[in-house]
Amino acid sequence: MPELRRDPITGRWVIISVERARRPSDFVRVPVAGATNRFCPFCEGNESKTPPEIMAFRPDGGEPNGPNWTLRVVPNKFPALRVEGNLDRIGDGIYDRMNGVGAHEVIIETPNHELFLSDCSEKTVENLFWAFRERIRDLKRDTRMRYIVCFKNHGDLAGATLEHTHSQIIGLPIVPKRVQEELDGSRRYFDFRERCIWCDMVRQEVEDGSRLILETDQFVAFSPYAPRFPFETWVLPRHHSSHFEDSSPQLIHNLAWVMRTLLRRIDKVLERPSFNFVIHTAPAHDGPLDHFHWHIEIIPRLTKIAGFEWCTGFYINPTPPEEAAKFLRDAGLV
Amino acid sequence: MPELRRDPITGRWVIISVERARRPSDFVRVPVAGATNRFCPFCEGNESKTPPEIMAFRPDGGEPNGPNWTLRVVPNKFPALRVEGNLDRIGDGIYDRMNGVGAHEVIIETPNHELFLSDCSEKTVENLFWAFRERIRDLKRDTRMRYIVCFKNHGDLAGATLEHTHSQIIGLPIVPKRVQEELDGSRRYFDFRERCIWCDMVRQEVEDGSRLILETDQFVAFSPYAPRFPFETWVLPRHHSSHFEDSSPQLIHNLAWVMRTLLRRIDKVLERPSFNFVIHTAPAHDGPLDHFHWHIEIIPRLTKIAGFEWCTGFYINPTPPEEAAKFLRDAGLV
Repeated sequence: MPELRRDPITGRWVIISVERARRPSDFVRVPVAGATNRFCPFCEGNESKTPPEIMAFRPDGGEPNGPNWTLRVVPNKFPALRVEGNLDRIGDGIYDRMNGVGAHEVIIETPNHELFLSDCSEKTVENLFWAFRERIRDLKRDTRMRYIVCFKNHGDLAGATLEHTHSQIIGLPIVPKRVQEELDGSRRYFDFRERCIWCDMVRQEVEDGSRLILETDQFVAFSPYAPRFPFETWVLPRHHSSHFEDSSPQLIHNLAWVMRTLLRRIDKVLERPSFNFVIHTAPAHDGPLDHFHWHIEIIPRLTKIAGFEWCTGFYINPTPPEEAAKFLRDAGLV
Repeated sequence: MPELRRDPITGRWVIISVERARRPSDFVRVPVAGATNRFCPFCEGNESKTPPEIMAFRPDGGEPNGPNWTLRVVPNKFPALRVEGNLDRIGDGIYDRMNGVGAHEVIIETPNHELFLSDCSEKTVENLFWAFRERIRDLKRDTRMRYIVCFKNHGDLAGATLEHTHSQIIGLPIVPKRVQEELDGSRRYFDFRERCIWCDMVRQEVEDGSRLILETDQFVAFSPYAPRFPFETWVLPRHHSSHFEDSSPQLIHNLAWVMRTLLRRIDKVLERPSFNFVIHTAPAHDGPLDHFHWHIEIIPRLTKIAGFEWCTGFYINPTPPEEAAKFLRDAGLV
């Protein structure tokens, strides 16, 4: 019998096909292609082909917008939003709009065109999360930015348009709908129980163990109880914190190990698939929140989303999270 | 300057890239492939290869599960949900689940393997919507079915797994999240204004005209103000009605003309793309609702959904609805 499971935060129900569970080998696997020889604006030596850099790491010294970097942050050349201007909220009959004011930045994670993020050193992954932290802290100083999304699209199926490994940051003048739903849902739980729902989730997942993928002193990674997608994976700090950007250097260091390990296991189990990950942090100008707990969602892109899912918000997932977790747990340290 | 626009029903904001608007020819177009010669369980003569039919149209007579039909409804051979059994809602620590009880049916729209729905006669399209209506009315008699979703996935990119043109019906023991959001959002508007938001939308779109695609005595089709996807198209009955399945034969007849015309225009403008459409009707056991207005959403699959969209519920749409509507309006009667 298939199962209907409810995400306790957003209230979303998903169908889990328990009977004809799809194992990793059942998916049509489309490994992300390796590097081609085309000209790449993200490669070392081509710094002039991106807009001037916002920030970069050059541990051995060097000039801005020159070579010798290990990570660069640059404005997106084709930004979805513009930094200049006022929001100018206006009505339009029954509708509302405002100017597309915001920030859109790209993090070039390594000068090496050949590597996937999962192939990079732990230090490279740590640099990426450190850059996310620094950029959020900087962007928050602009009061127009109400929410800052940090995410990575890897591979064609995940929406990446350039193959050189990179991540993105978008500063928004609104709180995105799904984050708002998480804020509302976790607030309702807190009002009822005076506990953070994610803290309760960490406790239950560690105790139960069936969906646990890995844990460290600082982090827990598991397959969520009601995942929308096969092999969807969540990473939560073990100790309560609402804002990712408040993370200590030690926490970022540990997070890099956790994320690198997970991405390498996903590469091994699912044959280097396309994937997305997104950091869910609290809104920029909120103080520390008791009910919200920052986390990262990783989604390998294995299935097509059909009309049913899109138009109803109701997902059919052919892989029970207990199965997915077992594969990712057993993949070992790679 | 890009624009941020808000969907007045769900409160979802989307980014509309006004400056570098993508016209139909700017998308990488992947026309749905024509028919192949593989064995097809949906073709006439292969009736025994599907589960026994639930309903069929045989205007010239003939036995059930034999040939001579113009439309067949059969249970899905690999159903996402099962009709037998009780829901048995149970808690699981902080989580909730229930048995996957529901219905999953397939409508084979024509015996002809070679045709897309848009190639079929108006009568064939009318049969499809009539079958949706009949199946909803029948499934509603089962009190476990709280919501019935009628939809079509056309083409590989839209999640169709069989090429013979068909639609699907899923009866659910819950109201899907996005439908619930529409119910909640339109209720809030009604509480405030004592008017249906979709009725107001029809009025404004007809008056404004810039997003209008076509109108008849009975229906209005337009590009919504804050579309998630390029060329997203909504079809609304002009007169208020919450339940699609209450439609009169005359309304279904007119709807068939509207839907066929829209699909043919989409085929012409976007080169026979993959698409989804979904009927949004009110929950099965609600009486007529003043605040909810049934409608159909059509979504051509032109762009990949990246991590950002998935994980935030915040969409970037490269085609302003005013541009999309103009192309679909100017495509004429095809």
